[in-house]
Amino acid sequence: MVVLLLFLPVIANGEVFTRSDLDRAAQLRDAAKDSGRAFGIVESLVTEVGHRMAGTPNDAKGVAWAVAKMKSMGFDRVYTQPVSFPVWDRGYESAAIIAPTPQPLTITALGGSIGTPEGGIRASVVAFATIAELEKAPAGSLRGKIAYIGNRMQRARDGSGYGPAVAARVSGAVFAARAGAAAVLIRSIGTDAQARTPHTGTMRYDNMLTRIPAAALGNIDADALEAVLSLGETTVELNLGSRVRNGSYTSANVIGEVLGSETPDEVVVIGGHLDSWDLGQGALDNGAGVAITMAAGELIAALDERPKRTVRVVAFANEEQGIWGGKAYAAAHKDSVGKHIIGAESDFGAGRIYRMSTRVRAEALPVIQAMHQVLAPLEIVLGPNDATGGADLSTMRDAGMPLLGLNQDGSNYFDYHHTSADTIDKIAPGDLDFNVGVYAAMAYLAAQAGPVF
Amino acid sequence: MVVLLLFLPVIANGEVFTRSDLDRAAQLRDAAKDSGRAFGIVESLVTEVGHRMAGTPNDAKGVAWAVAKMKSMGFDRVYTQPVSFPVWDRGYESAAIIAPTPQPLTITALGGSIGTPEGGIRASVVAFATIAELEKAPAGSLRGKIAYIGNRMQRARDGSGYGPAVAARVSGAVFAARAGAAAVLIRSIGTDAQARTPHTGTMRYDNMLTRIPAAALGNIDADALEAVLSLGETTVELNLGSRVRNGSYTSANVIGEVLGSETPDEVVVIGGHLDSWDLGQGALDNGAGVAITMAAGELIAALDERPKRTVRVVAFANEEQGIWGGKAYAAAHKDSVGKHIIGAESDFGAGRIYRMSTRVRAEALPVIQAMHQVLAPLEIVLGPNDATGGADLSTMRDAGMPLLGLNQDGSNYFDYHHTSADTIDKIAPGDLDFNVGVYAAMAYLAAQAGPVF
Repeated sequence: MVVLLLFLPVIANGEVFTRSDLDRAAQLRDAAKDSGRAFGIVESLVTEVGHRMAGTPNDAKGVAWAVAKMKSMGFDRVYTQPVSFPVWDRGYESAAIIAPTPQPLTITALGGSIGTPEGGIRASVVAFATIAELEKAPAGSLRGKIAYIGNRMQRARDGSGYGPAVAARVSGAVFAARAGAAAVLIRSIGTDAQARTPHTGTMRYDNMLTRIPAAALGNIDADALEAVLSLGETTVELNLGSRVRNGSYTSANVIGEVLGSETPDEVVVIGGHLDSWDLGQGALDNGAGVAITMAAGELIAALDERPKRTVRVVAFANEEQGIWGGKAYAAAHKDSVGKHIIGAESDFGAGRIYRMSTRVRAEALPVIQAMHQVLAPLEIVLGPNDATGGADLSTMRDAGMPLLGLNQDGSNYFDYHHTSADTIDKIAPGDLDFNVGVYAAMAYLAAQAGPVF
Repeated sequence: MVVLLLFLPVIANGEVFTRSDLDRAAQLRDAAKDSGRAFGIVESLVTEVGHRMAGTPNDAKGVAWAVAKMKSMGFDRVYTQPVSFPVWDRGYESAAIIAPTPQPLTITALGGSIGTPEGGIRASVVAFATIAELEKAPAGSLRGKIAYIGNRMQRARDGSGYGPAVAARVSGAVFAARAGAAAVLIRSIGTDAQARTPHTGTMRYDNMLTRIPAAALGNIDADALEAVLSLGETTVELNLGSRVRNGSYTSANVIGEVLGSETPDEVVVIGGHLDSWDLGQGALDNGAGVAITMAAGELIAALDERPKRTVRVVAFANEEQGIWGGKAYAAAHKDSVGKHIIGAESDFGAGRIYRMSTRVRAEALPVIQAMHQVLAPLEIVLGPNDATGGADLSTMRDAGMPLLGLNQDGSNYFDYHHTSADTIDKIAPGDLDFNVGVYAAMAYLAAQAGPVF
């Protein structure tokens, strides 16, 4: 990296980009407007493939779709990168209040959960307001009970309600098992309150503790359960047919490249994850991100000249169940992290980008400021230099790759996230067009930027 | 009826009601304000009973609940009236697109549908835009196919989109069977478009034709099916475990009366149906109507003096699957229709009343106008004299009973009607308070009105 310092004077002179670079970036920014191009990509994906849950037949169909789609888009190179992982099957799932007032509960198994014994689990429910409360339950105190965690996720544009809330989903089974519970139920990690749509998502076990079944109730069902609990002792039956299969499945990251004209080994990487959960269509999570970044790559591939560096679009395999695609990508590139100029990941639904945050070396901030000037007419603000980025690029980030965070408005994202309602009707085509322009312009400039990057 | 003419001069003099009657009606109109009383009744019902699908254990629990609740409310008499009917079991229900792009479809069986053979039905789908199109399909032309009807219900305050749309649900199986289809799928009769909530509801068979399974897709699932159909031949698998049980079940209408002080055999009847579908809580359909009319009766029972005529509140059994409670009520009163001064039924969710329509003899219109004066401050308009009323009082109406239509705003009702999302969170307590006041005031005045009524 020391060699880069030799070029710093270029930045110091304020000549971060040529006029032509900036003009071209502005053209890219506006090129997708009213095209509906990225929406068409999502529509093709959810219609011709449907969901892409990792390890299902639709996973392979999704990979084939992405390869064919990218090949049709003018990328110089399209290839796959194998990604292997264990497969979790959802199986059947149902629950009901048995006493005192029998009624069905709409639930969904959390990803990775074991099933219940044949015939289900019938047990009295013990409610905890938060996972912190459950964590205080003494060992053995929940023997033969179902633990319920009631915390409600808060809505926010930046999705900041997710982190505090999701601990119940991720670690609920661990703390419940430690207290001896037979199963754990949580209020869904989601902001919707109108429909009975439970939100799935991964959870984890502690290898030193018993594995117990874990499922999420829709918000309305959680309200109903709490109302019944207020009457007194409440028995719930839980039936889950979920299980982790023996052996592993090999899917693939699908990669399309616009090869750099000067330093093709230097890479600007953008992407999203191709896999989804099985309940909905995976239109927001993450057909949208795949489509935005593929369409951005297509716009760059359509320029008269190749940019100096390579722009790489990655449709990652199996993000949902353990960031397997992101980790495989990082493993494949462990010796070339330094060649990754910057990475940007779209995995926050289909809302418009309202902020550009970063995680770059201080020396690169003038470049970022110059890049941001192209976005200023879109009223995108420049955020702080402490971006954490998305899941798929997190391993590369930890290895030192700089990040560009093109933050999307997530006000409504968690109404649909990981539910059956994650369907294409939730996407406004114009919002995707907007984001495609931003990704194309920023990826292009990063590929043209001076060597400080 | 001729005897009534003797009293016409009272009306002609303009002395329809005494000042004290009108003052008391105005007090009743305002008495429920901010009380949350009817909401509390619905909350009790859905928490302590849950749904009340006809013939299920919850049906009996609902009847017991209504008897106990009415007994606690100050009615002079609370009793039940037996209602017998066949029982339909929903059983399991699932569907999926099998080819060309496998994906689950969210469906629900239509009430009364037979099940599919063991292992389900797999068949190619033939789409029709409307039931009128399906009706044109030649006999035998759909042999071995699944007919799909795509018409979409339109939103309207008065629910006027329901009638034209619901024909697909009620008669779809008849026309599909006539053309030889193996099953029928319809786009749900509902106005929602955000969640995957199929709408159930009754359908009918033609005894001269083969009975075929019938189910509704959520609006989003209907969109998805149509998108896949646009790719070419589409195979769907349908699995329904529904069936009609042998024998019959006896539930009950639950009746509470505030006995009239002068002519107790003359009755003003108000009510709603206690049964519901099983998918949701039956909070809107029709916990709300039961609560509104029970609370209105309670307010009248709490007056210092009994009204002249009897005010009767009926919580009808099994409206959903064939108006069995309403028919049983009419059969029990076939010799006393003329003693039913007027009837009003709340079965349109929890929206505010915006109009009072009627179906009365022309001679009674001055009474209606006088009654309406009490509602004018609430901005309730007086509608035409051609009301058709609700289902439960339709047999009494056909037998000659006059109707009061207290029309509720149903703009959002069909977002939730007959779905899993028919839950208590959809009810604004203040709207129920408002309606309770209207029902109490109108029932009171009808019970006080002169003999022209």
